[in-house]
Amino acid sequence: MGSVQGWPGRSVEAAFSLEEVQLAARNHGMPLEMLRHGITPVGMHYLLIHYDIPLVHPGSWRLHVDGAVANPASYSLDDLQALDHVTRPVTMECAGNGRARLDPRVVSQPWVHEAVGTGEWTGALLWPLLQEAGIEGDAVEVVFHGLDRGREDGVEQTYARSLTLDDARRPAVMLAWGLNGGPLPPQHGYPLRLVVPGWYGMASVKWLDRITVVTEPFEGFQQTQVYRFRTADDDPGVPLQRIAPRALLVPPGIPDFFTRERYVEPGRCLIEGRAWSGHGAIVRVEVSADGGATWVDADLDPPTFAYAWQAWSHLWDAEPGEHVLCCRATDEAGNVQPVEQPWNTGGYAVNDVQRVPVIVA
Amino acid sequence: MGSVQGWPGRSVEAAFSLEEVQLAARNHGMPLEMLRHGITPVGMHYLLIHYDIPLVHPGSWRLHVDGAVANPASYSLDDLQALDHVTRPVTMECAGNGRARLDPRVVSQPWVHEAVGTGEWTGALLWPLLQEAGIEGDAVEVVFHGLDRGREDGVEQTYARSLTLDDARRPAVMLAWGLNGGPLPPQHGYPLRLVVPGWYGMASVKWLDRITVVTEPFEGFQQTQVYRFRTADDDPGVPLQRIAPRALLVPPGIPDFFTRERYVEPGRCLIEGRAWSGHGAIVRVEVSADGGATWVDADLDPPTFAYAWQAWSHLWDAEPGEHVLCCRATDEAGNVQPVEQPWNTGGYAVNDVQRVPVIVA
Repeated sequence: MGSVQGWPGRSVEAAFSLEEVQLAARNHGMPLEMLRHGITPVGMHYLLIHYDIPLVHPGSWRLHVDGAVANPASYSLDDLQALDHVTRPVTMECAGNGRARLDPRVVSQPWVHEAVGTGEWTGALLWPLLQEAGIEGDAVEVVFHGLDRGREDGVEQTYARSLTLDDARRPAVMLAWGLNGGPLPPQHGYPLRLVVPGWYGMASVKWLDRITVVTEPFEGFQQTQVYRFRTADDDPGVPLQRIAPRALLVPPGIPDFFTRERYVEPGRCLIEGRAWSGHGAIVRVEVSADGGATWVDADLDPPTFAYAWQAWSHLWDAEPGEHVLCCRATDEAGNVQPVEQPWNTGGYAVNDVQRVPVIVA
Repeated sequence: MGSVQGWPGRSVEAAFSLEEVQLAARNHGMPLEMLRHGITPVGMHYLLIHYDIPLVHPGSWRLHVDGAVANPASYSLDDLQALDHVTRPVTMECAGNGRARLDPRVVSQPWVHEAVGTGEWTGALLWPLLQEAGIEGDAVEVVFHGLDRGREDGVEQTYARSLTLDDARRPAVMLAWGLNGGPLPPQHGYPLRLVVPGWYGMASVKWLDRITVVTEPFEGFQQTQVYRFRTADDDPGVPLQRIAPRALLVPPGIPDFFTRERYVEPGRCLIEGRAWSGHGAIVRVEVSADGGATWVDADLDPPTFAYAWQAWSHLWDAEPGEHVLCCRATDEAGNVQPVEQPWNTGGYAVNDVQRVPVIVA
């Protein structure tokens, strides 16, 4: 892949394009030290925005509900905020998290580990609103249309995704207008977004414009062309939905600015982090200080909400030398993070164990 | 530099390393469509954080003022908030903005165009607080120490920068505890940061711990080893201080997700943006639709505050075909953005004109 001579005297392996760096400068992750916060501060939650962030004037904005319903309706933001509403912590993760570490490389938004965050979302539950609209008997799916418009692989489109009626009926699915006690920031979908707890972020359509009940499965680009787990180009694959389990740790000690290598003082060192899964509660987090050769169980907090991450910690006796810290999560459905990651064409659901080299001195 | 075969069939030139991508996933820029906002929404202002974001407990935090002063003091956040304070919009930009576009490449945080933002900062002016401390007669500089600690080019350090007494005396320099009407977010320096209007962001030390008045010029790493404009390795260079002028435009039309190429409909098209300089007000913004061959003056708003960007706009008659939109700013000191960028070793102050290819169809 060639190397780049960098000032001051850095020689690095070049593997990424300007296009990927340009995406990374727009769409940021959550710096891993933010795992110390149960609720991710505004501005630190990961963002993946396909096109541009729309500028929405709240006075003229309305949510339209139409399609195969008895009572098509439209709502102002005030109308929605007058409905019963809930406030819930939800851990959201990009389906492409970890993609940058795949070999062979998969070229798209280059996440390393950090495409995650837990927001405290406020909004109305979806299903009562759909019941109010009166879903007709031949309906099969609900399509969520955003206001964000662009092109992708030559296809001009407005971002849209669907849920089956069964998925739309899940009691946790909400239409959110608030984050962490304030309004939605523009970059998180102001004035209204869908939040689908337990699923990768692509399902949680931002800048909602229209909810359309349909009688045939939705064939939109974001539903059928991308966000599918395929092991080869001729594999039709399966759609990405629930988040695979992952534990991440706060890299201990202090970092090198450029390499992010960690320097830790000898002695007892608190290793802490969070773990989550879209398949159910996390039941076990293990820690390794030798790159995965041996593992010990960490102390794991119980869930605070069904779809929010759980805190865990472990006291490590850091002896002088070089070590590789790892952590891995197991969820109640029995899914365990892999040590070796099988490759896939989209770079999705890359949930192999985090490896954090540390120098203890 | 080699190429990378990406799914779905993208072949791209690889020029950047995983280390740079890892930095870009932490330190994000401002998506350029946010130029529509006079005050950058929280979470969209650029961030450049050398080490980790410290977790500060406000109850035990204090600001210490010491060194060559008659009355060393320490302040709680409540103490500071009881002082006279001001709220001011300030445009801040990273000294490395534009670095990713330099050839030969300079390896560090890879900004393309977007390392900028305008916050509405609330805090106390610096100079009255220093006067209260009683600066001694042999003092020459004021050193600002943050709480963020790490290593850089082998040197372990706490982030620190100094100002000369003359620079510290500038009436706009403030100790800020608020951003956009709320407390400082953790990533912007909670609970207290320096804001040095008109200067590149490295001067505005975050997570302030200690302000020390010194009798010899400060020789710290961030003051003397980096943030210097050098044309070659043997050039001692000059320190980066005031922001060079720049205009940026909101890329019009709709983007391609991956390439960010723009697609615009034929007809009248509003080109809008912001322009700023640390050397004084912007007096002229020019726009080109032919890659810089010909220029026309844009409509330019007057300054709202001495160190905040100015809005500008231009109605462009978009004819079918491919065009390259450019904009360039001139400040009242007579500085004009270059069309061709001279190279420097650190990739600093790269303020050549923005070029936005658009396809009108």
